[in-house]
Amino acid sequence: MTQSREVRLKDRPVGLPSDRNFEIVTVTLSAPGPGEVQVKNTWMTVDPYMRGRMYAGPSYSAPFNVGEAMTGGAVGEVIASNDPALKPGDLVRSFMGWREAFNAPANQLEKLDTMGLAPQLFLGAAGMPGLTAWAGLMRVAAFKPGDTVFVSGAAGAVGSMVAQIAKLKGGKVIGSAGGADKIAYLNSIGVDAAIDYKAAPDLTKALLAAAPEGIDVYFDNVGGGHLEAALNAAKPHARFAICGGISAYNNIGATPGPSNFLLIVGKRIRMEGFIVSDHGDMAKDYVPQLAAWVKEGKVDVRETVAQGIENAVDAFLKLFSGGNLGKMLVRL
Amino acid sequence: MTQSREVRLKDRPVGLPSDRNFEIVTVTLSAPGPGEVQVKNTWMTVDPYMRGRMYAGPSYSAPFNVGEAMTGGAVGEVIASNDPALKPGDLVRSFMGWREAFNAPANQLEKLDTMGLAPQLFLGAAGMPGLTAWAGLMRVAAFKPGDTVFVSGAAGAVGSMVAQIAKLKGGKVIGSAGGADKIAYLNSIGVDAAIDYKAAPDLTKALLAAAPEGIDVYFDNVGGGHLEAALNAAKPHARFAICGGISAYNNIGATPGPSNFLLIVGKRIRMEGFIVSDHGDMAKDYVPQLAAWVKEGKVDVRETVAQGIENAVDAFLKLFSGGNLGKMLVRL
Repeated sequence: MTQSREVRLKDRPVGLPSDRNFEIVTVTLSAPGPGEVQVKNTWMTVDPYMRGRMYAGPSYSAPFNVGEAMTGGAVGEVIASNDPALKPGDLVRSFMGWREAFNAPANQLEKLDTMGLAPQLFLGAAGMPGLTAWAGLMRVAAFKPGDTVFVSGAAGAVGSMVAQIAKLKGGKVIGSAGGADKIAYLNSIGVDAAIDYKAAPDLTKALLAAAPEGIDVYFDNVGGGHLEAALNAAKPHARFAICGGISAYNNIGATPGPSNFLLIVGKRIRMEGFIVSDHGDMAKDYVPQLAAWVKEGKVDVRETVAQGIENAVDAFLKLFSGGNLGKMLVRL
Repeated sequence: MTQSREVRLKDRPVGLPSDRNFEIVTVTLSAPGPGEVQVKNTWMTVDPYMRGRMYAGPSYSAPFNVGEAMTGGAVGEVIASNDPALKPGDLVRSFMGWREAFNAPANQLEKLDTMGLAPQLFLGAAGMPGLTAWAGLMRVAAFKPGDTVFVSGAAGAVGSMVAQIAKLKGGKVIGSAGGADKIAYLNSIGVDAAIDYKAAPDLTKALLAAAPEGIDVYFDNVGGGHLEAALNAAKPHARFAICGGISAYNNIGATPGPSNFLLIVGKRIRMEGFIVSDHGDMAKDYVPQLAAWVKEGKVDVRETVAQGIENAVDAFLKLFSGGNLGKMLVRL
């Protein structure tokens, strides 16, 4: 019988979550039933969107239930199988993160073809965040070579892929991030300008200094002052892919929208929100392309890794204080 | 020699404009020079977008100059001609409003083919406001038959055309306006629901009561609480055509954007600002269609008419207190 620790939502956070909103519980797994396999997770992901699932109200994914283990992306190894489709040793991707091991029907798991990539990349650059970057940039924002692209949260899991894809596709890229390490990383991946928003007294000025003629595309991961600066610096007919607004995820009560929203009219800006799950059809083109870029050394994928399920909550919380360079992952 | 009164911008309004920001001056026109004609305006238009031109900063049309006559759409009659292209008695449309008469090069004027419509309609339903409605609904919002459309300012020059076009094209229409007369008008043109926003304690509730399954399209003339209600009531993948935000045009300082802006992500909403001048190519389809609808009695065009240039400023100011049903016009 396998023991597994899992992270449960103890109560719904109000404002910034803390350790006290979660608890770790050890459960015992029975042997997998007919059609089932048992999986030992080796990697799980923590992502900003999970904050939305901690609210009771409707979000774009179902809310977590209080008192139950949370869910999320994970990569693991089959350790016992009661189904011919999977055998012990097989690598699988699932939505059964936030736990060390689990039983599940084999047909609900994805047997992973890593294409020679490290497995955990399928939770990051080759997974949901990478596809988010690709779909948001190429489809939602309709990126064209020569576009000037501003991406906020540019040193994060999604933003760092937006920046690198836009460079590889012939764009000019301005990335914002907080702190010297992230700015150094952005410069190392070849962005045309990196803005340390924690050090910039006026984000609009900094953006216009980097892009005096304005921006064609804004990829928004942050919201708030970043979105206002992007509106101020937008060229006519600019396209904004609104991916998220981490600056507001923990706000209590209403968050004022951009105070210069009406620039959308005079500049004829198109803003479009999107969710990666609508764009799964693009994975078949994107993932092999990403694998090729990684092999050719054209993409520099960074990870910030926490060790052990006991540190998963802390890793999640660090997303909201900028404590990750690249993809935040938990190795189990 | 012709005498003409014209309305000049005396100084730039701060907040809500008043009479004191304008002055009426009488000028004397010389005879038209070579290639010129002299026109006596019979109708001029006042429109909300003109408020933006009273600011010094860049807007989407050039700012008015202090001390000079303002400009805007007008319809008039040629009273003297020094160019073979136009002869006395010809009806012309120009951008030389806010004055009783003017000289201008004949090649800068549009000789008007009224298609049997009243001339002043070419400042309203068959002019810029009507084309704004058509382009915003059909192109920007990509209206499809069966869509549920919410339009704010629905009894105004643009909104009333949005409502009627959407109904004629097979949509369900919810319109908002302020006051019993406007609501009666909206009901008379066959909207599916009319919301008196001045009487509705909760706009989101009122909108969801009218459209329990949500809205597909929002045509925004108002901004503020209307935009927030539309975000709350939007179906997934709703399209918002952002035409204007009259609720904020006279604000001093920054105007908070919609406090529920982040719904754009979860609902994958597309918001697009637009200006009618980008869509002039659509006039060749729209204007004959509108003329046919008017002749068939399928469109009910309303006007609120002020008399004389001395009342033009007052007519303009009334736009911001909801003092117009349909198109606000000045008969000269």
